[in-house]
Amino acid sequence: MGTKMRIAGLMSGTSADGVDVAIVDIDKDKVNVLALDTFAYSDELRRSILGLCGSQSCDVADVCHLNFVLGEVFAESVRKLCKKSGIGLDTIDLIGSHGQTIYHNPKGRRFGKKIICSTLQIGEPSIIAERTGITTVADFRPRDMAAGGQGAPLVPFADYFLFCDKRRNRAIQNIGGIANVTYLPAGCETKDIIAFDTGPGNMIIDGIVSILSKGKDKFDRGGKIAARGTVDKAILDNMLRHPFFSRRPPKSTGREEFGEQYVELVYQRMKKKGMSSENILATATAFTAETIVRAYRKFLPQIPDEVILCGGGAHNETLVKMLKHGLGESRILLSDDYGIDCDAKEAISFAILAYATIKGAANNVPSATGAKQPVVLGKIIPA
Amino acid sequence: MGTKMRIAGLMSGTSADGVDVAIVDIDKDKVNVLALDTFAYSDELRRSILGLCGSQSCDVADVCHLNFVLGEVFAESVRKLCKKSGIGLDTIDLIGSHGQTIYHNPKGRRFGKKIICSTLQIGEPSIIAERTGITTVADFRPRDMAAGGQGAPLVPFADYFLFCDKRRNRAIQNIGGIANVTYLPAGCETKDIIAFDTGPGNMIIDGIVSILSKGKDKFDRGGKIAARGTVDKAILDNMLRHPFFSRRPPKSTGREEFGEQYVELVYQRMKKKGMSSENILATATAFTAETIVRAYRKFLPQIPDEVILCGGGAHNETLVKMLKHGLGESRILLSDDYGIDCDAKEAISFAILAYATIKGAANNVPSATGAKQPVVLGKIIPA
Repeated sequence: MGTKMRIAGLMSGTSADGVDVAIVDIDKDKVNVLALDTFAYSDELRRSILGLCGSQSCDVADVCHLNFVLGEVFAESVRKLCKKSGIGLDTIDLIGSHGQTIYHNPKGRRFGKKIICSTLQIGEPSIIAERTGITTVADFRPRDMAAGGQGAPLVPFADYFLFCDKRRNRAIQNIGGIANVTYLPAGCETKDIIAFDTGPGNMIIDGIVSILSKGKDKFDRGGKIAARGTVDKAILDNMLRHPFFSRRPPKSTGREEFGEQYVELVYQRMKKKGMSSENILATATAFTAETIVRAYRKFLPQIPDEVILCGGGAHNETLVKMLKHGLGESRILLSDDYGIDCDAKEAISFAILAYATIKGAANNVPSATGAKQPVVLGKIIPA
Repeated sequence: MGTKMRIAGLMSGTSADGVDVAIVDIDKDKVNVLALDTFAYSDELRRSILGLCGSQSCDVADVCHLNFVLGEVFAESVRKLCKKSGIGLDTIDLIGSHGQTIYHNPKGRRFGKKIICSTLQIGEPSIIAERTGITTVADFRPRDMAAGGQGAPLVPFADYFLFCDKRRNRAIQNIGGIANVTYLPAGCETKDIIAFDTGPGNMIIDGIVSILSKGKDKFDRGGKIAARGTVDKAILDNMLRHPFFSRRPPKSTGREEFGEQYVELVYQRMKKKGMSSENILATATAFTAETIVRAYRKFLPQIPDEVILCGGGAHNETLVKMLKHGLGESRILLSDDYGIDCDAKEAISFAILAYATIKGAANNVPSATGAKQPVVLGKIIPA
């Protein structure tokens, strides 16, 4: 992959609270982040999206309408970030847009004699290309699925692009709602990548904070509450016995396993034992840390020389401290240490994926998605 | 536009009974049709599609699933046609797929302060590209809509590509359920094209045949029944007073205006008058012919030197005879006379549209769709 390009990456996550935009310069394998921001959705838009995702019944007219509405919102967010950061819209060569997932069925559904897997992201890229005048690459997941993959995770390719090192074994540890690792052996090729979900990331911690504060707070800022508590070993050990942690990768998890119901169960058990809020959060935080540490020891060929953290959990100092303790052999760093903002890595990733697509380079990671072969992801909408 | 390409074009119409596939060689502006066929959908698939289109309520999971199912069906139909016709799949350079429209809202719907127009075609092109190994262009309508157009009609670009002549003024008259004309003045550019719906095509004739035969027959083969009847002038004149015919183009119509309800109304009126089946069909056929003739006289800058017929109505000899009578100044021809199969012109058109897209040429016709400017339609999925 040659020539320098300026690319805007867009990501809208499953929480549907807004779109992350990052503008980057990519020159060969060097990525320079120029600007980033999150543009919140209006309440009306968020409700409409969640209405599509959640309910079993909807209106085809709504799917059709919201696809175009989100296209407008995405285009507008690129324009806004350009204006705010003083970057000329006309200096951007390419846009990579993940879109908003409204359905994802990697297990598949029968049609005739075949099992058909499918996925649906909305945010019409023809609108983005037309409003910005910029060639747009979008809709990355379907092609990996067409090639027999699960259509996820896609970020490991960007992790490889950003962080693969000739001499050091690295793990890129994302700690969002769910935590996932991309392991990059020194000097690896994409086929050598190991990527899987290690378990819940902030999902349990955030859930408990929300219960304790009666919905007022959403997370334990900087891990300050947990820092004042003590871990309950017996409870922790019990939590670690969840069958997900002994399953072999590639594997993924989500709200079905570690969502509200699980949080409620765990919280009630700790409360019954008379634990303080601080001890409860210390234990929940240790759970995330310990599941990461154990996943590395159990499933990686060796403990990485460097662990590079990203996602919201990278701001949780108690969690980071626990990881440092559990992974004494590794240097624990933040993606920020390499100029990649912890919170914008997904948006940056879709800029990188679009860059590969436009260069005609395969950009799925079959060892992570289960695809039968490397393929060029995405659809190209000419400017 | 240069180099020769072999392209498969796919079209699935609103009746959702199957997919038309055409394989063509395009060399500069010459189109040579190599093979064509229609592959009927299974009853299950047809029911599923119509279920999405018709009902107000659906399941996002169904939209997601059927998008991938149709992708498989489209890919398979290309493979089948190749096998049947002895054309190597690996000799095909490009696929152009219209997809199956499940919603189309050119009038738009309010979101906040904006009116958002939208359209939704399914038949996942990532599946087509992956299964065939052929670069695929799909989803042509959204970009025209993004540019302020109605996303339709798109065929006039193909008509221009196929039939524009330096010396002769030509009208390409498609007679499907609805009848529509593309007028190409001699030596025209795309901006000079006039295209609009002239009114019902076979919709009334077919509807009446269905009533008369109690659903046994679907159309008046060759116009044979109508040929034996006499036109009732009073009824015809009354039908011609429908307000659609005085509306100025660009204009379009559909089942809302000339569907089952209208057919029933007209049929009852004629039956009440004691007209024979032959006379009823002669009058219905004259209605289609006369609306075309009047549209030309009223809305075209001059009567074309040649009228080139396509669509199922081109096989109706009574209708063709009436057109010849009403347009004495014009030569009436079939698209078959130019090597373009009457019934496969839409599939051929999407091969031509894909060809333009891949060459980076604008391929909407703003004067027909209402778009503010020419744009390159479609999404490109690399092989």
